Amino acid sequence: MKNLIFFGHGARDSRWREPFDRLVSLWRVQYPHARVELAFLELMQPSLEEAITTLVVAGEVEVVVVPVFFGQGGHLLDDFPLLLSDCRQKFPQVSLSATPAVGEDEAVLQAIIDFSARAL
Amino acid sequence: MKNLIFFGHGARDSRWREPFDRLVSLWRVQYPHARVELAFLELMQPSLEEAITTLVVAGEVEVVVVPVFFGQGGHLLDDFPLLLSDCRQKFPQVSLSATPAVGEDEAVLQAIIDFSARAL
Repeated sequence: MKNLIFFGHGARDSRWREPFDRLVSLWRVQYPHARVELAFLELMQPSLEEAITTLVVAGEVEVVVVPVFFGQGGHLLDDFPLLLSDCRQKFPQVSLSATPAVGEDEAVLQAIIDFSARAL
Repeated sequence: MKNLIFFGHGARDSRWREPFDRLVSLWRVQYPHARVELAFLELMQPSLEEAITTLVVAGEVEVVVVPVFFGQGGHLLDDFPLLLSDCRQKFPQVSLSATPAVGEDEAVLQAIIDFSARAL
Protein backbone atom coordinates (compact mmCIF):
# COMPACT_ATOMS: atom_id res chain seq x y z
CA MET A 1 0.00 0.00 0.00
CA LYS A 2 1.12 3.54 -0.77
CA ASN A 3 1.67 5.91 2.12
CA LEU A 4 1.80 9.65 2.27
CA ILE A 5 4.15 12.34 3.50
CA PHE A 6 2.93 15.94 3.57
CA PHE A 7 6.09 17.96 2.99
CA GLY A 8 6.10 21.60 4.09
CA HIS A 9 8.65 24.39 4.31
CA GLY A 10 8.78 24.76 8.09
CA ALA A 11 8.98 27.97 10.14
CA ARG A 12 10.39 29.25 13.42
CA ASP A 13 6.94 29.80 14.92
CA SER A 14 5.34 26.56 16.12
CA ARG A 15 1.84 27.91 15.36
CA TRP A 16 2.79 27.82 11.68
CA ARG A 17 2.38 24.05 11.55
CA GLU A 18 -1.27 23.96 12.68
CA PRO A 19 -2.75 23.55 9.15
CA PHE A 20 -0.26 20.71 8.56
CA ASP A 21 -1.42 18.94 11.70
CA ARG A 22 -5.01 19.42 10.51
CA LEU A 23 -4.15 17.88 7.15
CA VAL A 24 -2.82 14.81 8.97
CA SER A 25 -5.97 14.58 11.10
CA LEU A 26 -8.26 14.93 8.08
CA TRP A 27 -6.28 12.28 6.20
CA ARG A 28 -6.37 9.80 9.10
CA VAL A 29 -10.14 10.11 9.42
CA GLN A 30 -10.80 9.77 5.69
CA TYR A 31 -8.07 7.31 4.66
CA PRO A 32 -7.19 5.29 7.76
CA HIS A 33 -5.58 2.50 5.71
CA ALA A 34 -2.83 4.69 4.21
CA ARG A 35 -0.29 5.92 6.73
CA VAL A 36 0.56 9.61 6.76
CA GLU A 37 3.51 11.55 8.17
CA LEU A 38 4.60 15.17 8.11
CA ALA A 39 8.08 16.31 7.04
CA PHE A 40 9.69 19.74 6.76
CA LEU A 41 12.42 21.21 4.58
CA GLU A 42 13.88 23.36 7.36
CA LEU A 43 13.28 24.91 10.79
CA MET A 44 10.89 22.12 11.90
CA GLN A 45 11.12 18.43 12.62
CA PRO A 46 10.93 15.76 11.35
CA SER A 47 13.03 15.94 8.19
CA LEU A 48 12.00 14.02 5.08
CA GLU A 49 14.57 11.35 5.95
CA GLU A 50 13.16 10.99 9.47
CA ALA A 51 9.59 10.71 8.19
CA ILE A 52 10.59 8.01 5.68
CA THR A 53 12.42 6.17 8.47
CA THR A 54 9.20 6.16 10.52
CA LEU A 55 7.32 4.56 7.60
CA VAL A 56 10.12 2.05 6.91
CA VAL A 57 10.20 1.00 10.58
CA ALA A 58 6.44 0.42 10.30
CA GLY A 59 7.15 -1.93 7.39
CA GLU A 60 6.03 0.35 4.57
CA VAL A 61 7.86 0.38 1.23
CA GLU A 62 5.76 2.70 -0.95
CA VAL A 63 5.82 6.40 -0.18
CA VAL A 64 4.33 9.35 -2.04
CA VAL A 65 5.54 12.81 -1.00
CA VAL A 66 3.05 15.68 -1.42
CA PRO A 67 4.76 19.10 -1.37
CA VAL A 68 2.41 21.42 0.52
CA PHE A 69 3.74 24.54 -1.16
CA PHE A 70 1.91 27.06 -3.32
CA GLY A 71 4.69 27.95 -5.70
CA GLN A 72 7.37 25.81 -7.27
CA GLY A 73 10.40 28.01 -6.81
CA GLY A 74 13.98 27.19 -5.91
CA HIS A 75 13.01 25.03 -2.92
CA LEU A 76 10.91 22.64 -4.98
CA LEU A 77 12.70 22.86 -8.31
CA ASP A 78 16.25 22.65 -6.96
CA ASP A 79 16.45 21.57 -3.29
CA PHE A 80 13.61 19.04 -3.26
CA PRO A 81 14.81 16.80 -6.16
CA LEU A 82 18.24 16.58 -4.48
CA LEU A 83 16.64 15.69 -1.16
CA LEU A 84 14.47 13.06 -2.85
CA SER A 85 17.45 11.60 -4.69
CA ASP A 86 19.41 11.48 -1.43
CA CYS A 87 16.53 9.63 0.28
CA ARG A 88 16.28 7.17 -2.62
CA GLN A 89 19.95 6.29 -2.09
CA LYS A 90 19.47 5.92 1.66
CA PHE A 91 16.32 3.80 1.30
CA PRO A 92 16.86 1.64 -1.81
CA GLN A 93 14.08 -0.71 -0.67
CA VAL A 94 11.48 2.10 -0.75
CA SER A 95 9.51 3.14 -3.82
CA LEU A 96 9.60 6.91 -3.39
CA SER A 97 7.62 9.26 -5.63
CA ALA A 98 6.38 12.84 -5.42
CA THR A 99 3.42 14.83 -6.69
CA PRO A 100 3.60 18.40 -7.99
CA ALA A 101 3.11 21.16 -5.41
CA VAL A 102 -0.48 21.38 -4.18
CA GLY A 103 -0.58 24.97 -5.50
CA GLU A 104 -0.43 23.50 -9.02
CA ASP A 105 -3.82 21.84 -8.52
CA GLU A 106 -6.80 23.69 -10.02
CA ALA A 107 -9.19 22.43 -7.32
CA VAL A 108 -6.92 23.77 -4.57
CA LEU A 109 -6.76 27.16 -6.33
CA GLN A 110 -10.54 27.11 -6.80
CA ALA A 111 -11.00 26.48 -3.06
CA ILE A 112 -8.90 29.60 -2.42
CA ILE A 113 -11.05 31.58 -4.88
CA ASP A 114 -14.23 30.36 -3.14
CA PHE A 115 -12.80 31.26 0.29
CA SER A 116 -11.93 34.76 -0.99
CA ALA A 117 -15.34 35.27 -2.57
CA ARG A 118 -17.02 34.43 0.74
CA ALA A 119 -14.91 37.15 2.40
CA LEU A 120 -16.19 39.89 0.08
CA MET B 1 -17.47 47.62 -4.00
CA LYS B 2 -14.91 45.52 -2.16
CA ASN B 3 -11.73 44.61 -3.96
CA LEU B 4 -9.20 41.90 -3.33
CA ILE B 5 -5.46 41.59 -2.82
CA PHE B 6 -3.90 38.11 -2.79
CA PHE B 7 -0.95 38.50 -0.45
CA GLY B 8 1.87 35.97 -0.72
CA HIS B 9 5.29 35.53 0.79
CA GLY B 10 7.39 36.02 -2.34
CA ALA B 11 10.50 34.12 -3.44
CA ARG B 12 13.70 34.65 -5.38
CA ASP B 13 12.63 32.32 -8.20
CA SER B 14 10.15 33.97 -10.57
CA ARG B 15 8.50 30.59 -11.29
CA TRP B 16 7.29 30.59 -7.69
CA ARG B 17 4.60 33.15 -8.47
CA GLU B 18 2.82 31.10 -11.16
CA PRO B 19 0.00 29.84 -8.88
CA PHE B 20 -0.54 33.43 -7.72
CA ASP B 21 -0.90 34.60 -11.31
CA ARG B 22 -3.37 31.75 -11.87
CA LEU B 23 -5.39 32.84 -8.83
CA VAL B 24 -5.67 36.33 -10.35
CA SER B 25 -6.76 34.88 -13.72
CA LEU B 26 -9.35 32.61 -12.10
CA TRP B 27 -10.68 35.52 -10.03
CA ARG B 28 -10.96 37.85 -13.03
CA VAL B 29 -12.94 35.30 -15.02
CA GLN B 30 -15.31 34.45 -12.17
CA TYR B 31 -15.65 37.83 -10.43
CA PRO B 32 -14.95 40.48 -13.08
CA HIS B 33 -16.67 43.23 -11.07
CA ALA B 34 -14.29 43.05 -8.09
CA ARG B 35 -10.77 44.20 -8.86
CA VAL B 36 -7.90 41.97 -7.81
CA GLU B 37 -4.20 42.64 -7.30
CA LEU B 38 -1.24 40.59 -6.07
CA ALA B 39 1.12 41.74 -3.32
CA PHE B 40 4.15 40.13 -1.69
CA LEU B 41 5.75 40.36 1.74
CA GLU B 42 9.30 40.18 0.41
CA LEU B 43 11.51 39.25 -2.55
CA MET B 44 8.81 40.04 -5.13
CA GLN B 45 6.93 43.09 -6.32
CA PRO B 46 4.53 44.75 -5.81
CA SER B 47 4.47 45.36 -2.06
CA LEU B 48 1.16 45.59 -0.21
CA GLU B 49 1.47 49.38 -0.25
CA GLU B 50 2.03 49.40 -4.01
CA ALA B 51 -0.96 47.11 -4.62
CA ILE B 52 -3.22 49.31 -2.48
CA THR B 53 -1.96 52.37 -4.38
CA THR B 54 -2.99 50.72 -7.66
CA LEU B 55 -6.51 50.21 -6.31
CA VAL B 56 -6.71 53.73 -4.87
CA VAL B 57 -5.60 55.25 -8.20
CA ALA B 58 -8.42 53.25 -9.81
CA GLY B 59 -10.82 54.93 -7.39
CA GLU B 60 -11.39 51.99 -5.07
CA VAL B 61 -11.81 52.52 -1.32
CA GLU B 62 -12.66 49.05 0.02
CA VAL B 63 -9.92 46.44 0.06
CA VAL B 64 -9.85 42.92 1.52
CA VAL B 65 -6.43 41.28 1.81
CA VAL B 66 -6.33 37.47 1.53
CA PRO B 67 -3.08 36.00 2.92
CA VAL B 68 -2.19 33.10 0.61
CA PHE B 69 -0.17 31.29 3.26
CA PHE B 70 -0.71 27.84 4.73
CA GLY B 71 0.45 28.51 8.25
CA GLN B 72 -0.02 31.55 10.46
CA GLY B 73 3.47 31.89 11.89
CA GLY B 74 5.59 34.93 12.64
CA HIS B 75 5.01 36.51 9.22
CA LEU B 76 1.25 36.59 9.57
CA LEU B 77 0.93 36.95 13.33
CA ASP B 78 3.62 39.60 13.78
CA ASP B 79 4.78 41.20 10.49
CA PHE B 80 1.44 41.31 8.68
CA PRO B 81 -0.59 43.23 11.33
CA LEU B 82 2.17 45.86 11.44
CA LEU B 83 2.17 46.13 7.66
CA LEU B 84 -1.62 46.43 7.62
CA SER B 85 -1.56 49.08 10.34
CA ASP B 86 1.10 51.01 8.41
CA CYS B 87 -1.05 50.87 5.25
CA ARG B 88 -4.13 52.05 7.18
CA GLN B 89 -2.17 55.12 8.28
CA LYS B 90 -0.94 55.79 4.75
CA PHE B 91 -4.39 55.33 3.20
CA PRO B 92 -6.89 56.73 5.74
CA GLN B 93 -9.55 56.94 3.02
CA VAL B 94 -9.41 53.16 2.41
CA SER B 95 -11.42 50.57 4.33
CA LEU B 96 -8.77 47.87 4.69
CA SER B 97 -9.55 44.43 6.13
CA ALA B 98 -7.95 40.99 6.03
CA THR B 99 -9.12 37.38 6.11
CA PRO B 100 -7.35 34.57 7.98
CA ALA B 101 -4.69 32.67 6.01
CA VAL B 102 -6.19 30.44 3.32
CA GLY B 103 -4.62 27.42 5.07
CA GLU B 104 -7.10 27.99 7.91
CA ASP B 105 -10.00 27.18 5.60
CA GLU B 106 -11.37 23.63 5.84
CA ALA B 107 -12.37 23.54 2.16
CA VAL B 108 -8.83 24.48 1.09
CA LEU B 109 -7.41 21.72 3.31
CA GLN B 110 -9.99 19.27 1.93
CA ALA B 111 -8.94 20.13 -1.64
CA ILE B 112 -5.35 19.24 -0.64
CA ILE B 113 -6.59 15.95 0.86
CA ASP B 114 -8.51 15.16 -2.37
CA PHE B 115 -5.46 16.01 -4.49
CA SER B 116 -3.30 13.70 -2.34
CA ALA B 117 -5.82 10.86 -2.48
CA ARG B 118 -5.85 11.05 -6.28
CA ALA B 119 -2.05 10.64 -6.23
CA LEU B 120 -2.18 7.36 -4.32
